[in-house]
Formats: sequence, C-alpha cells, structure tokens
Amino acid sequence: MNHEFDAIRKLFQQRVSQQDELTHVANGDDASVHIVPDGLAWVQSTDTSIVGVHCPEDMALAIAGHRAVCSALSDLAAMGAKAHWLWLAVMAKSSEDLEQMSLGMVQACLEYKIELAGGDTTSCPNTNAITVTVAGLLPENSAMTRKAAKEGDEIWLLGDMGLSALGLKLWQDESIENNAFTAKQQQALIAFQQIKPLLEQGVKLRQAGVSCCIDISDGLLQDAGHIAKASQVAMHIDVEKIQALPAFVIIQRLEPALALSLMLQGSEDYALLCTAPTSLHQTLKKMGASLIGSCHAGNRVILLEYGEPITFEQKGFDHFE
Amino acid sequence: MNHEFDAIRKLFQQRVSQQDELTHVANGDDASVHIVPDGLAWVQSTDTSIVGVHCPEDMALAIAGHRAVCSALSDLAAMGAKAHWLWLAVMAKSSEDLEQMSLGMVQACLEYKIELAGGDTTSCPNTNAITVTVAGLLPENSAMTRKAAKEGDEIWLLGDMGLSALGLKLWQDESIENNAFTAKQQQALIAFQQIKPLLEQGVKLRQAGVSCCIDISDGLLQDAGHIAKASQVAMHIDVEKIQALPAFVIIQRLEPALALSLMLQGSEDYALLCTAPTSLHQTLKKMGASLIGSCHAGNRVILLEYGEPITFEQKGFDHFE
Repeated sequence: MNHEFDAIRKLFQQRVSQQDELTHVANGDDASVHIVPDGLAWVQSTDTSIVGVHCPEDMALAIAGHRAVCSALSDLAAMGAKAHWLWLAVMAKSSEDLEQMSLGMVQACLEYKIELAGGDTTSCPNTNAITVTVAGLLPENSAMTRKAAKEGDEIWLLGDMGLSALGLKLWQDESIENNAFTAKQQQALIAFQQIKPLLEQGVKLRQAGVSCCIDISDGLLQDAGHIAKASQVAMHIDVEKIQALPAFVIIQRLEPALALSLMLQGSEDYALLCTAPTSLHQTLKKMGASLIGSCHAGNRVILLEYGEPITFEQKGFDHFE
Repeated sequence: MNHEFDAIRKLFQQRVSQQDELTHVANGDDASVHIVPDGLAWVQSTDTSIVGVHCPEDMALAIAGHRAVCSALSDLAAMGAKAHWLWLAVMAKSSEDLEQMSLGMVQACLEYKIELAGGDTTSCPNTNAITVTVAGLLPENSAMTRKAAKEGDEIWLLGDMGLSALGLKLWQDESIENNAFTAKQQQALIAFQQIKPLLEQGVKLRQAGVSCCIDISDGLLQDAGHIAKASQVAMHIDVEKIQALPAFVIIQRLEPALALSLMLQGSEDYALLCTAPTSLHQTLKKMGASLIGSCHAGNRVILLEYGEPITFEQKGFDHFE
C-alpha cells in the first residue's frame, strides 16, 4: 500500500540481519514463527512512542527511534526476561523521517542483539510514531511481577533516577543557549536521550530469586504505587536514603529546589524497582542495588524521613494508592 | 502518561475478560507471560491501520477498529495458526474516538475468542490509528509459508474476492444517495466493512497438509506474485476460472467494465490463496476451495485464457514478478 517505503523496508531488514536460532520463519512472510524450548515461557509487551507526545518535537528522529525501542525493552528487563525479538510498526510523515527513525531503531536492535521479526511501515500525513512490540523468554513460573511483594520485603533500586527528568527540563529551558551546558547538565541531557534498558540486570535479579519488580517509567512514587496496589502491601520509602543516592547529589547541585521532586516523580529513567526478602540483602547489595525502603501491611506508598511519615506536596501523589 | 484514558482502558479489559489457559501473567503487568506447550511454535504478526489511510475518514470508528483486528488475524489464518492473543496499541484523537474504536476491537476479540494480552492507549492530536499484534500457535514445522510452492502444484482460492474493492468503490461513489443501494450493492458494502479472517479454514488447510498459503490483502495478482518470488515458481492463473467464481458473477452484473480488474487487483478481501500437490485435489474441493491455476517453472505470475497467455493492461502488474 505504501510502495515508496519498500526500498527503506529492505534497508531495515538488511541492516538488522541477525536471526535468532529459535526463529523458524523469519520476517517477510505473513507472520514469523518461533520455537520456545521446553520449560521456557514467552514474555511480550507493546508500547507506542509518538514524536511530540512522548518525546519533544525537536528531538532528532534517530534518537526518538532509539528511545522507542529501548523503552519497550525495559518492560522485558522488569520481568527478568532475555530479549529475543522485536516487531516494529512505524508511521512516518515522509520517507526521510522514516529513514531517520530507522537509524536509531536499527542501532538499538544491534546494541541489544534483538532480531527484527516483523513490522509495518506506513505513510501518515501528520504524525511520526513508532509502536514497538518486544518478546523474550524466561523459565516458566519465574517471571518477576508487580504482585509478588510481601510484608517484610526490603525495597531496592537498581539504576539511576531523576537525571532523565532533569534532562527534559534542561532541554525545554529556552534560557540556556546551545552549547552552554555544563558537564553535569550534559550528563542529564544524555540520560534523557539515551535510555538504557537494564536487561542484564533484570535477568540477574530473576536468577537471584527476586520475584517482584517494575521498571520506573512513570516516576518512583507512581510505579511503587503499582506494586503497592497489585501486591496489597504498604511501600515505605525512606527519603533520607533517596537523598543519599549519587544521582540526587548531582541533581541537587543543579536544581536544589526540584531535586526531591525529580527523584520521586521524574519519569523515563527506566531504573528497576524491586522488593525482596531480607535473605537476599547481601546479594542485592553486591549487584549494586540501593536499599530505599521496606514493605509493610497496607496498600499504598508512604514516604518516611528518619522513620516519621511525611507528606510530599506534589500534584498527583494522592492518586498513587 | 494519558490519565484521561485510564477509565476506558479498564472498560477495554473488563469487556474482553476471557483469559487463555496458556496465559501465566495477564494484561496489567510490565509484560504478559505465556506458556507454549511442547511441540508447538509461536506465530506472530503486526499491522497498523490508520483512519483516513487504510480506511475512509468517514467510516464509523467502531467498524475501523473491527477491521484493524480482523485484518491482523488474517495473517495468522494464512500461516494456519490457531489465534490466541492480541496486543493493541491505539492512538486516538479523543477519548470519544477511543471509545468508538474500542467497541469494534472488543467485538472482534469476542467473536474470535482472542485474549487481549496487553496494550497501550495514547492521545494523539491529529491521528486515529491502531496497531494490532496477534499471536497464535501451531505444531512445529507445520506453518504454511509463501516459499513452499512447487512446480506441479495446483493453485486454489478459498473465500470471496473482489467484493471488498467493489464495496470501497461504492462507498466513494458520491453519485449514489444514501439508502439507494441495491441488495447486491449492500452485499459488497458489507464485504468491505466486515473483514472475515478465515482462521478455521487456515487451520484446516494446514491440517490437510497444505504448506504454501498467503492471504490476499493486496489483490490476487500482487499476492500471487509474492508466492512466485518467494518459491521461485511461475504462477499460472486461468482467467476463465476466475470468471466462473460466484463473486465475479455478482460484480460483473454491477460493474461489467471493472469486474476482472476488481477480481485480480481488488484488495482487502482476505481470501486465502494456496498451492498444493494434485494428491490434495479432492480434499481441497471438499473444503469449498476453487481451483484457479497451476505452478510451473519460472518466477512470476502469468495470466492465461483457455491456455493462452494474455496481458492484463493495468498499472502495476509489471511489478509483480
């Protein structure tokens, strides 16, 4: 239906030529066919990124493409799955825009060794958008879910937080001229542009015996709220522990007034938030995770400062229970 | 990110509540998890439908939603897979539009007993679009593909052709006033609006031993060309057999000048085109398939009229080799 895109679709397929050994029928037929070895389960998620909605309209399309793929892969990381395959549905205003988006998508596929198993490119007069469906495998009954937190579990964080939200803020700050960013500001801008799905870390958490995990795409408080609701536990987050994280120190130097808000509500860092029994304390510490709280009776998120509940006066917090 | 849609997403999930017995982690976590029994393979395809591009801007959004799901399911039919799961990524201009599209999508899920395993709804200021990812299962090494046609195979057609393209033509014909359609015209308009993926027939073809199949989404000649290229066979199509099909008789009465073109190039009928050795002749006949040609040495589509090659002077035909 969109013949002008045929040549580029070929470019796509030729650039991501690796084929998973479990693929029986690859890209190019009505559907692709994949073998799932005995004892493994199929894990799948889908996500849409619209340019101008999920990322700024003035972001390079190659970066938008890379972010779309990496953000989808983060969902597999949160389950503890090994990523294998990817299906792309790309709507592009022009073949030039498609070409630009494809550069970033292809790069992400190569970076994380994902097979492009299928897809669809469509001309759309007024929207650039990418829907990414990702699939991976893990041993049956081992997936990390949101509903597996238990009272007495400790709450751990793996990966940086707040920097991506700070990067977006800097991106939107028109008072800063181009090239006038400091090194620390650059670090935040890079965090915003280069999403890093913690795929290896997710697999390691699962292998270590962690059964409850979520990736922080909507901000720590909101995503902790998803666990609280699904698991029916109270998630007690210790603010002083958040303030001791390395990312907080960077952010506080740049934006002291907003630092805590960026850490608690900043989105799109794709860190992993998990809970685990105290028997896994040493294991998680060795993996580089940071302890930030503990699970108790209840079903909402509670912020504590040195053991005393505090209120965090930001719009939206009341909705996280 | 789009909180206004949360209520509707719930409506979605509540309406399509059936859960496949092979699903371990259902919709609502970072990803869903599915068991694939030993000896079965996973089959998957993804397709985007943009309102105004893939269907008319003035089509009811519920019908657009239904068509998007059914058109994606047709790819599983062409592989011979049993359909199990579906992931939806919906971009909607407003929550009203999302609600309308969801009605048709939900109806299709219920009609074909598909579990809604995941999805994403996004507000997009200027585009209504649906990306549907479908997955099913079939015994390992049994998928029907485009590359399995052999010289000596007969070419068979299962399902109607041409009516959908005629329906689109009538839809666009502003000279016909509303409610002035004849019964036969209504039949074409319904064919255009209500895509019927031939899922049961696809499974039966595979079980009967057919190994080469495609669904006709881009028109008979173009899709036959896909088989010719992938299998490296010449697809000889007998025009007099096409002209004996029941759909041709209807179309010829309504649009005599365009009848053959609608049959050969009309898109979106989602009939199944397959090839099979002569040993399966009686089986396919009993299934209601129509014999329309045979496979020979070569690698393109050739039209014949009572055994003599003819040229079909329509734009695009030269590209089908």
